Amino acid sequence: METLKEKILKDGYIIEPNILKVDQFINHQIDVELFIEIGQAFKSHFANQPITKILTVEASGIAVASLTSLAFGNIPVVFAKKATSAITAGKMYQASVHSFTKNQDYQMIVDQRFITKDDCVLIVDDFLANGQASLGLVSIVEQAGATLAGVGIVIEKGFQTGRELLEEKGIDVHSLAIIESFEEGRIVFK
Amino acid sequence: METLKEKILKDGYIIEPNILKVDQFINHQIDVELFIEIGQAFKSHFANQPITKILTVEASGIAVASLTSLAFGNIPVVFAKKATSAITAGKMYQASVHSFTKNQDYQMIVDQRFITKDDCVLIVDDFLANGQASLGLVSIVEQAGATLAGVGIVIEKGFQTGRELLEEKGIDVHSLAIIESFEEGRIVFK
Repeated sequence: METLKEKILKDGYIIEPNILKVDQFINHQIDVELFIEIGQAFKSHFANQPITKILTVEASGIAVASLTSLAFGNIPVVFAKKATSAITAGKMYQASVHSFTKNQDYQMIVDQRFITKDDCVLIVDDFLANGQASLGLVSIVEQAGATLAGVGIVIEKGFQTGRELLEEKGIDVHSLAIIESFEEGRIVFK
Repeated sequence: METLKEKILKDGYIIEPNILKVDQFINHQIDVELFIEIGQAFKSHFANQPITKILTVEASGIAVASLTSLAFGNIPVVFAKKATSAITAGKMYQASVHSFTKNQDYQMIVDQRFITKDDCVLIVDDFLANGQASLGLVSIVEQAGATLAGVGIVIEKGFQTGRELLEEKGIDVHSLAIIESFEEGRIVFK
């Protein structure tokens, strides 16, 4: 998606060797116009799938999912909640996820009422790096017995293993911008 | 807003004496159609203000803000992040907020680049109860020297002190559904 790549080059910046900051338009301030286009790009790719729900995880995924829904006829969004320990109240799907960013595990939780075997689910998120959050969401779709349409990602770090882990499971991963490397502080797209 | 009140009566439910659960359509699963209408209702009320940014706090406020932006011409959304301790890196507005729900304090943080004195800010959130989160967001707007257009709330618990605390500061608080009381497990709107 060209608009997105131009925006990343213009307003993104790199801190430490491998961390891309896009807080000006993706995960702190949100460029709503851009996010509507992002939703349309996901719709173009997943047009042939009878998607009924969009699934993501709090917090920054919520904006991606909410505005992606518009291109899919305003279908419901479900966001997984993060908890530090397993939840025993109510009927919940749960997946244990390791966050490399924070170097800690958390529980990803979705109420069983909101994803069922009749759903065809599109997972979306702002970033794909090592794939742990996406795999947690995939596990929830599997626990529900729902159909997984695929995974839509805004920015993929192509030099990490997330895509490989998802594709090994036969999942269609569609990323709108794939970063191949950071060379001397410069962003190189695939 | 009648559609919202009907939805609350149909799909909301009460746990413990005073907790209204609306996770089926507001803060776990999101009814996107309803949220677009919510944005339009905020626009009707705040139509005369030259609003440039919508401010909320993670996580469930993000969906409200993102879909409210549509009625305001897709203006940028900024969501405050929650941290357990003060942030010393970068230039940040910070407000200390007490959460009665979790009975703990947190820091609400917004990068100074994203709200400036030239902005006219609409604060939105899913709930108003004791007003602590809204007051934190108001403090951030004040720190920025920006103009505050007002506070737009989806569901207000009218029997708690949030509105009073905000109105004491001369703030226009617009809630789309105000709950007056829970009587024997029944929701009574104002």
